[in-house]
Amino acid sequence: MSTPPGSGTRLDPWFGAYAARTHGMRVSETRALFAVANRPEVVSLAGGMPNIAGLPLELISKVTADLIALHGDVALQYGSGQGHPVLRDHIVTVMGEEGISAHPDDVVVTTGSQQALDLVTRIFIDPGDVIVAEAPSYVGALSVFRAYQGEVVHVEMDADGLVPEALREALDRCKQAGRPVKFLYTVPTFHNPAGVSLSVARRQEVLEICRSRNVLVVEDNPYGLLGFDGEVLPALRSFDAEGVVYLGTFSKTLAPGYRVGWVAAPHAVREKLVLASESAILCPSHASQMSVSAYLENWDWRGQIVDYRKMYRTRRDAMVTSLAEAMPECSWNVPGGGFYTWVKLPAGIDARTMLPRATTALVAYVSGTAFYADGQGADHMRLSFCYPTPERIREGVRRLAGVISKELELVHMFGPEGSSVDDDVEAPSPDLL
Amino acid sequence: MSTPPGSGTRLDPWFGAYAARTHGMRVSETRALFAVANRPEVVSLAGGMPNIAGLPLELISKVTADLIALHGDVALQYGSGQGHPVLRDHIVTVMGEEGISAHPDDVVVTTGSQQALDLVTRIFIDPGDVIVAEAPSYVGALSVFRAYQGEVVHVEMDADGLVPEALREALDRCKQAGRPVKFLYTVPTFHNPAGVSLSVARRQEVLEICRSRNVLVVEDNPYGLLGFDGEVLPALRSFDAEGVVYLGTFSKTLAPGYRVGWVAAPHAVREKLVLASESAILCPSHASQMSVSAYLENWDWRGQIVDYRKMYRTRRDAMVTSLAEAMPECSWNVPGGGFYTWVKLPAGIDARTMLPRATTALVAYVSGTAFYADGQGADHMRLSFCYPTPERIREGVRRLAGVISKELELVHMFGPEGSSVDDDVEAPSPDLL
Repeated sequence: MSTPPGSGTRLDPWFGAYAARTHGMRVSETRALFAVANRPEVVSLAGGMPNIAGLPLELISKVTADLIALHGDVALQYGSGQGHPVLRDHIVTVMGEEGISAHPDDVVVTTGSQQALDLVTRIFIDPGDVIVAEAPSYVGALSVFRAYQGEVVHVEMDADGLVPEALREALDRCKQAGRPVKFLYTVPTFHNPAGVSLSVARRQEVLEICRSRNVLVVEDNPYGLLGFDGEVLPALRSFDAEGVVYLGTFSKTLAPGYRVGWVAAPHAVREKLVLASESAILCPSHASQMSVSAYLENWDWRGQIVDYRKMYRTRRDAMVTSLAEAMPECSWNVPGGGFYTWVKLPAGIDARTMLPRATTALVAYVSGTAFYADGQGADHMRLSFCYPTPERIREGVRRLAGVISKELELVHMFGPEGSSVDDDVEAPSPDLL
Repeated sequence: MSTPPGSGTRLDPWFGAYAARTHGMRVSETRALFAVANRPEVVSLAGGMPNIAGLPLELISKVTADLIALHGDVALQYGSGQGHPVLRDHIVTVMGEEGISAHPDDVVVTTGSQQALDLVTRIFIDPGDVIVAEAPSYVGALSVFRAYQGEVVHVEMDADGLVPEALREALDRCKQAGRPVKFLYTVPTFHNPAGVSLSVARRQEVLEICRSRNVLVVEDNPYGLLGFDGEVLPALRSFDAEGVVYLGTFSKTLAPGYRVGWVAAPHAVREKLVLASESAILCPSHASQMSVSAYLENWDWRGQIVDYRKMYRTRRDAMVTSLAEAMPECSWNVPGGGFYTWVKLPAGIDARTMLPRATTALVAYVSGTAFYADGQGADHMRLSFCYPTPERIREGVRRLAGVISKELELVHMFGPEGSSVDDDVEAPSPDLL
């Protein structure tokens, strides 16, 4: 039981009334970074905003106008908690691109895939329950797990994604410790932030490891269709309909402003998700869902995704080329899709303490620490190439290289920093940036 | 700790993996009633769907088209977790209609006010914490409180709303029992389902009772601007900015399909709500928020609300007139605004067990039991007059009167029923209806 109400402070009279989970809520790095990204003089290699400049706005304007004029009585009304049936049909088609065979009844539409994460965590996680996740892992997922007081056990990745042997060991170690694992949370394709994909050979192996131990797999797949060479990897869900809860979204293949994502789940889990969603939001927006359906019905959305791939590939190329040209003593991978490069910093440099100096030099990134539940990650930074133009990416990398060079001079002169680190600062505050 | 994963059933292999909160999730009566309302032959006096036929769809179509064509790059992009600043300005203006003086920084935009309820409960309620609420109370709020394993203590209402003396006693009783109350949840104006409003004289008294006991007030106000004689009661929040968390929505004054609601809260609480919302959905839909702003800027929304009042007043009149004409041995109030009439059934009739017979007679309502956390309410039913036409309302009441007459014949012949009640059935299933 938390402190009783009435034991507030001068600054917050309700401080004593909060739930235990609330005391663990911290300003997310993502949130702080929205503030940076909005300052035009800063090159933000931080945020995950997709570049939607290529969208056919005139067409979307027209189909949305028709939707409201002809079907406004439905589009502006409440809908079902599970989501609009027509959109769920389309979602099944979209998932088919990744080899998934599903039924519209398996699908629950959510307010972005972030809500899907929230709902899955809500129905499975009691305080103290264990979730296994890649090291590093998506910051927004870690934030949800923390909100439900779950505990994350990280499992290492290599260039082929999650390492099966490490997963096996982690699950068995948790079991032996009497701490059963509620689910594996994984971003198998074009990982955020690591940029790697789970190899096809490993996909079956990871599923088999989880299946044999009765561990559910939560597959988060926002970038699966954004492979730069056009190859689409088979989703984990395509191999296993009963052991995988699949999260998808239109935020990256269409646009995030509708906040339309989804979850495809085994029947009984899906029922719980609908109940949880009705409690959370009653129903997802009909206007948004029907707008997305209208877009899919009136535009070559597969061609749009091909355009997006080319556009992001050009940006990825700008990123890795300029990294190779300018970045001293760092290493990174060359992502085959998605939005992010994961850069290992030179020994002695701390991504978190460097961030204020980088923003002073008008470039922003996300410290690797955001992607771990356990304080690791200060030796990495995530650089996103999704939103800025190639020229801005190159300029951002040049600025960052300058900052790192100066840091290196200090390291070489005085040894690795660290004494100035305030361990309490987990996220940059908006004011700092 | 719940049952370990792996202890599933044949029907649900993941049954053993659910969180404790999930086992308390039940099919909501609201959900089941969506299924009824969609069958055209049934007169539904059950659902709370607003009647949006009076909306200027051509205008909304045009301003939405302009929004996408001219500002699609923003409208279809991510936004801030707190909500779009322009919309928050408008929301302050809307709240001003109820005497509220607020700042846009006090406002957090949510996915309908249901999400506001979810977030407020999330940040305040640990399992077992007490929430005080009117008897009866809004079904969607009770569902959220149950999802967070909160415990509801009901306080009686009379024709002037919540009874201050009963509130005082309930709070003191909880305190003496060592169970401090986290907040009072109240719908002070045009209550759902009871149809009554808290008198102006009592508003200050209720606030003073809570203030003196350090109990937060959560004021849920979806219907405040829908008073049939045009009178607008001052919101509780208009008297107390620091002790009241106010929930509002555009679902009833504009349309529910955008899923745009909001919460106005004291500064420190507002900060927690933003963090909770970012974890839950990242950010609310820009497209929805900017569509609502465009409507407010391009249409006489106050005039629209006046039209809505007249339209709902006509329906209220159809409801109470036909009740007076047809309904045997029942009593009800005449609501001054909102969507609902709360009808007391004759002695011996159970609203829950009568429901299948009513739907067989092609009329639906919500059993009073949906509006209590403690099994009360079988002697009441909620009749909504918001969606059907006046003629359909009259037809629905006639059908319902027929059902009740038949029930009464049985009661008079055999005494009150009850033996056939299955106490496990808390909600009608969609198949039943």
